[in-house]
Amino acid sequence: MTLYGERGFENTTVAEIAERAGLTERTFFRHYADKREVLFEGSDAFAEAFIGIVSKAPASVAPIDAVTAGLKAVAALLQDRPEFSRQRQAIIVASPELQERELIKFASLSAGLADALRARGLGDPAASLTAELALAVFRVAYDRWIEDDEDRDLPQLIRESLDQLRVVAAGA
Amino acid sequence: MTLYGERGFENTTVAEIAERAGLTERTFFRHYADKREVLFEGSDAFAEAFIGIVSKAPASVAPIDAVTAGLKAVAALLQDRPEFSRQRQAIIVASPELQERELIKFASLSAGLADALRARGLGDPAASLTAELALAVFRVAYDRWIEDDEDRDLPQLIRESLDQLRVVAAGA
Repeated sequence: MTLYGERGFENTTVAEIAERAGLTERTFFRHYADKREVLFEGSDAFAEAFIGIVSKAPASVAPIDAVTAGLKAVAALLQDRPEFSRQRQAIIVASPELQERELIKFASLSAGLADALRARGLGDPAASLTAELALAVFRVAYDRWIEDDEDRDLPQLIRESLDQLRVVAAGA
Repeated sequence: MTLYGERGFENTTVAEIAERAGLTERTFFRHYADKREVLFEGSDAFAEAFIGIVSKAPASVAPIDAVTAGLKAVAALLQDRPEFSRQRQAIIVASPELQERELIKFASLSAGLADALRARGLGDPAASLTAELALAVFRVAYDRWIEDDEDRDLPQLIRESLDQLRVVAAGA
């Protein structure tokens, strides 16, 4: 990621990344499907953690509260690395290819969350909507969190974003 | 689009599309940035219509009601072409490249809606959240609408999706 930051994503080759990491290109491709995946290294673990918490929430917990628990858990995972997240996002924002990959990751997480909610007995469209709302809340809070002038932490921004969601949806 | 349906998006060349449409490749690229754009021909008009309605809603209208008015208007635009929409979506779903392009279009529409809401004086995160909610409602209703066994029309599915949004966000 340091190389992407130095030269830009488009101008960095797999050979250069592999060299910097002390790997052969072949080993690189054993770890990553392509150059873009380097920036989404933790995304599977992130999705699994989020979905796992939603799946394990007691049946008595309302769907929005189950995803809220998931949001809080993933926020805690990210909270300690604001500088890393900021640098990573700057690289993604500068490249349409990377933005596309990020959007695909979010869409896949949304589908996974909706499945987890259906497995808890939630019907449609409520399951898909709840999953989309959770990601909307996350994205809005995350984008705010990585801004330079932002002092609030990610869990707090997620709480505020959830509060706003209720206000907005209620038509205030 | 007929060619994509017949052969698949990946197996269709620009030369073949241009020939079928009675264009030279050069003329093709004057109209479309790339092969993918063919499937997103109306997306600018769609975004403009949606954003225009949100911008023009009276100041007294709550943000969620302004986007609801926009949703109803775009639903009416699409409602008459279920078969076209179904074929188009089948092509998109079959191609990761096209899914990426679709996600980028939605992200750009979301940003445009949020800007329109900010111009109406709505703060953040409410503006971004309201825009994301509108698109979540649209996507969930649209995906349902193009399913083979769906009889309800798109405006009705959007109303139901909006109702569900309120229920979900309220924590029921």
